[in-house]
Parts: sequence; C-alpha cells; structure tokens
Amino acid sequence: MTGENVRVQLQQLFSPSVQHTLDVIGIFVFAISGALLAVRKNFDVFGMAVLAEVTALGGGLFRDVVIGAVPPAAFTDLGYFLTPLIATLVVFFLHPHVERIQAAVLVFDAAGLGLFCVTGTTKAYSYGLNLTASATLGLATAVGGGVLRDVLANEVPSLLRWDRDLYAVPAIVGATMVVLCIRYDALTPFTSGLAVVTAFVLRLLAMRFHWRAPRAWNRRSTVSEE
Amino acid sequence: MTGENVRVQLQQLFSPSVQHTLDVIGIFVFAISGALLAVRKNFDVFGMAVLAEVTALGGGLFRDVVIGAVPPAAFTDLGYFLTPLIATLVVFFLHPHVERIQAAVLVFDAAGLGLFCVTGTTKAYSYGLNLTASATLGLATAVGGGVLRDVLANEVPSLLRWDRDLYAVPAIVGATMVVLCIRYDALTPFTSGLAVVTAFVLRLLAMRFHWRAPRAWNRRSTVSEE
Amino acid sequence: MTGENVRVQLQQLFSPSVQHTLDVIGIFVFAISGALLAVRKNFDVFGMAVLAEVTALGGGLFRDVVIGAVPPAAFTDLGYFLTPLIATLVVFFLHPHVERIQAAVLVFDAAGLGLFCVTGTTKAYSYGLNLTASATLGLATAVGGGVLRDVLANEVPSLLRWDRDLYAVPAIVGATMVVLCIRYDALTPFTSGLAVVTAFVLRLLAMRFHWRAPRAWNRRSTVSEE
Repeated sequence: MTGENVRVQLQQLFSPSVQHTLDVIGIFVFAISGALLAVRKNFDVFGMAVLAEVTALGGGLFRDVVIGAVPPAAFTDLGYFLTPLIATLVVFFLHPHVERIQAAVLVFDAAGLGLFCVTGTTKAYSYGLNLTASATLGLATAVGGGVLRDVLANEVPSLLRWDRDLYAVPAIVGATMVVLCIRYDALTPFTSGLAVVTAFVLRLLAMRFHWRAPRAWNRRSTVSEE
Repeated sequence: MTGENVRVQLQQLFSPSVQHTLDVIGIFVFAISGALLAVRKNFDVFGMAVLAEVTALGGGLFRDVVIGAVPPAAFTDLGYFLTPLIATLVVFFLHPHVERIQAAVLVFDAAGLGLFCVTGTTKAYSYGLNLTASATLGLATAVGGGVLRDVLANEVPSLLRWDRDLYAVPAIVGATMVVLCIRYDALTPFTSGLAVVTAFVLRLLAMRFHWRAPRAWNRRSTVSEE
Repeated sequence: MTGENVRVQLQQLFSPSVQHTLDVIGIFVFAISGALLAVRKNFDVFGMAVLAEVTALGGGLFRDVVIGAVPPAAFTDLGYFLTPLIATLVVFFLHPHVERIQAAVLVFDAAGLGLFCVTGTTKAYSYGLNLTASATLGLATAVGGGVLRDVLANEVPSLLRWDRDLYAVPAIVGATMVVLCIRYDALTPFTSGLAVVTAFVLRLLAMRFHWRAPRAWNRRSTVSEE
C-alpha cells in the first residue's frame, strides 16, 4: 500500500460521526479539568470559561496551526467550541460534587489523553508529516492543553513536575503504537482502539501505583524541594 | 445579499486610512499599558519594548495565525511595529506623568478594547470563519495581547481574576453586535461604530461601578484569598 | 540586483550542509540551557526533554508559523528533533560537570544567539517579509526559545529582567547588519559570518563587563527590588 493510500484511508479510519463523538467526549473531560483549576484559583465565571476552552482546545489548536490546517477545527466546529462552555456551567453549579468525584474526573482525563494522542498523531500524518513528527504532534495534542492551562493559571505545568504521576509516557506509548501501525500497514480501527486503550490503562496504572520518572543523576539542585 | 458580497463589502467597511488610523490608536494605548507594567516589574528598556509590542500586537498576531493571514499585519505594516516603540519611549521618559494619568490610560485602553473586538470580528469573518468563530476571534484579538503581557510578566492574567472589573464582557457584547449585524445584513459603518462605542462605554461603566463576575456556586476554594 | 534575485540567492548563501551543521550546533547549545534549567527546577527527565526541545526549537517554530513555512523545520527535520534529546541525555548523566562548565555553556549559548539571529533574519526575508520585519523575526528566532523556556518554568523571562547582562542587543545588532547588507546588495557568506561573529562577541563582552540596559527615567517603582 502506498503512503498516499494510507493517508486517504486514515481520514476514513473512524466513521466521521464516531470520530466526532470521541473528540467531543475528550474535549468535555479536559474542559472539566480546566474549569476546576479555575475554581481553585478563585477565577470568576469568565476565567473558568477561558481556562476550560484553552485546556480542551489548546492542544489541537497548536497541532492545526503547525500542520497548516487553518482555520483550526476548534474554530470551525461549533460543537467543539460550545462543549467547554457546557463543562463550565456544570462546574459552576455543581463543583463541590465535581470535586468529590475527582477520581472520576481523572479517569475521564486519562481517556481524553489516550484519545487525543491517537487522533492527533493520525491527523498530523494525514497532513504529510513524517512518522516521528506525527507522534510528537500527537503527544503535543494530548498534553498541550494542560500545559497552556497551567501557564495561564501561573503554575508550573504539572506535566513537568517530578512529583506528579507519569502523564507524558502513556501518550508517548499510544502515539508510538500508531506510527508503528502506520509504518507496517497495520492501522485499523481495531489497532487504533488498542492504542487508545493502552495509553488509557497505562495512565490509570501510573496513578494507581504512583509511577514517577527519574530526575537527573547525582542531582544537587540549587533550589529547595517544593 | 449573499455571504460573498458581505465579505467583499466588509473589507471596505471603513476607508483604509480611517481603519489604519483607528488600529494605530488602539495599538498605541495597549502598548502604553504594556510598557507601564514593565516599569512596575523593574524591567529594563528592552523589556519595556518587548512587553509593549506583545501587548499591542499579540492579539492580532494570534488571530492572523489562526485564520491563515500570514505573514500577519503586525509584521508587514511598519507603522504597526513602530507604534509600540514610540509608546515605549513616551513611558521611558514620562512614566511618572503617565502613571499620574493612569485614569486616562484606562479610558484609552477601553477604547482599544472596543475597537479591536469589532475589527477582529470583522477580519475573521472576511477570512471565511462562521459567526461564532468570528466573534470568538474578535474577543481573542481584544484581550489576547493583555493575556500575553501578564503571562510574560509572570502574573495571573488580570482577565481571569475575579477581583478585577469586567473586561471580557464588553468585548463579548461588541463582537456579538457585529455578528448579529452581519447575520441580518445590517453591518454599516454606523452600526460598527455603535458596537465600538457600546463596548467602550460598557467597559467604562464596569470600571466606574466595579462590576464583577460571579465565582462558582457554593465556592469552598482550597487556596487562600489573594 | 533585483529583490527576487537576492531572495533566490539567499537560499544558497551557505551550502545546505554547512547551514544544517550550524543550525544543529545552535540547537544543541540552546537545548543544554533548557535541560539545565529543568534540573534546577527539579523537573523529571521528561520535563528536561520538553524544556530542551522548547528552548532549542521554540524560536524557529514561532518564526516558521508567522511566515507561513508550515510544517516548520522543527517537525520535518529529524536531526533538529533528536538533537535536544541527546542534549537531555548529556545533562541527565553529566549535569554536575555541565554545571561546572557553566561558563562554557554560556559561550556556546552566545554562539547560538549570533547564529540564530542571522539565519532567522535571512529565512524571514526569503519568505517575502520586509527588512524591518525580517530583522524582528531574526531577533524573535534568537531569543524566543529562551522566553518560552522561562515561561514554562514559571519564571520571569531573563530577557526582560534589568539585572541580567544584555542579551537582546547583540541579536539586534546582528540582525540589523544582515538587513543592511541585503539593502545594499552586500550579503555574502563573509558578511553573514561577520554578523554572526559581531553578535557573538558583543554578547561575550556584555557578560564580561556586565553591560546592562537602563530602566525608566525617574523610576519610582511600586514593587520592591527583587
């Protein structure tokens, strides 16, 4: 199968309606995490909406600008834009309950991570990027919104902190599975779904067992532990 | 009137020289606010120039990259680029006086807000975005520079803080008026001007009466009040 | 010589392999500075890799998105992407030694600054920007990665701080030399190299003699000295 055929086929990997539904679910759960952080930072309802939009759509927006897919889907698809506003309303009225179900939110967030790393990689490849670049953009799609959320909230991105459970690695594994499948002509809805589930489960395990990444060898840092 | 006709006409809504003059005024007042924050943060003259440029041009730069209008006007129009440098010089030599007239600066900033939310919405629509996306980008044009300014200065964006007077709402109202006018074939220089003035006056009223947006219901935040 | 001829010729200014080698060296030294900051901030190895990539490729990525050169070279050239990962490994295993040779790192960083301001300006001009915009993007290419690095690490960008030795000025001088050479048909490998060396030496002198830029006249800042 030629590269071109793969690329045409990629766009039909999931039926459009299934793909759209999965995207909206991922956007919703990421938006919840943004709105909750806004509540913790004492932002008002507009700050909540901004942080929800940025968290949910920021990663995909970055990917689309980089691959030249402008205007980005975040601005052309009304559902993508409205979903974070609904998430904001949910958090605005129910946030003590949302916080109580924080564990559930983290599970959904893990699902969004798995989903976005796979769809991000696929979309980047379908725009002509090489395999390594596609996987990198898949990772950026999955984690970019959370980084923007933390930067706007004036916090060190939790992606970078050593004292947080592994977040990037599950997305890297998922994106790598996708590009390996593309490389060996094995990308099907089944293998794509397997990559989503693998990233999702790895993230759940990382949270359950507090897997963390090592810091630099012989570390003698000049700042105090936070 | 067809959508295409509207879009062609939009680009002639204001005469180019009037449009350009209004843009330069908006850029100047936003640049003043950036340079003043740089003084408060003890930045040197280059930091002042960087913050002035980013505040004045950041919102439009984001809009242009998103709609695919590259290279952005910020880089192709010499006047747009030089105006923040002039604002930097003004603040550099006169800043105790500029601070004394802080109230006047806030009035000009409100004028910039009103202007940019209208011209940003119009430009986004003329590049083929739908009405909701156009209004969103109009809002982003108006508030984006200020958010970048605060992020670079390592502060929580004042756009997001609950203890600041309403800033996004006037721009949302102005942008919404523009897309309603487009929708009902009523966009003229007069109605556009009305949208600018409405956003401007709403912002002035928000400052005068300290209008603020609500925070989340039943808020029991885990961080202390700042 | 017509502008078009200049632009065609620009792309052959350096032989591709020489240009590529210079770029990779610049990327490597910037990546080292990003990974070292990550160690100081107690980030884990993935945080180190992210900060190394962002520092090394962020400036060029911004330039490429602004001039419409998508997908950016950072994503299409595998060597550009892998170099920061190698720098991360070097810092991960050797960072006490790397810190001990901090002076050497600063010299390499100065070399990267000189190189990137010249190649950034040249690339922007070859994409049709005017001379002022090209020089500005050359400056942004040289300093943008460092600004992104500091924003992600939740610090005030050292570019903006008054208590750091001049960093922007050497890059401004180098970029200005390039556009003057273009303006007067004098851009050759020799004059380009001269611009690189001038920016490099100016930065070394700024560090040696602690040259700093002035802050605003009659400064009576409302924040305490940090």
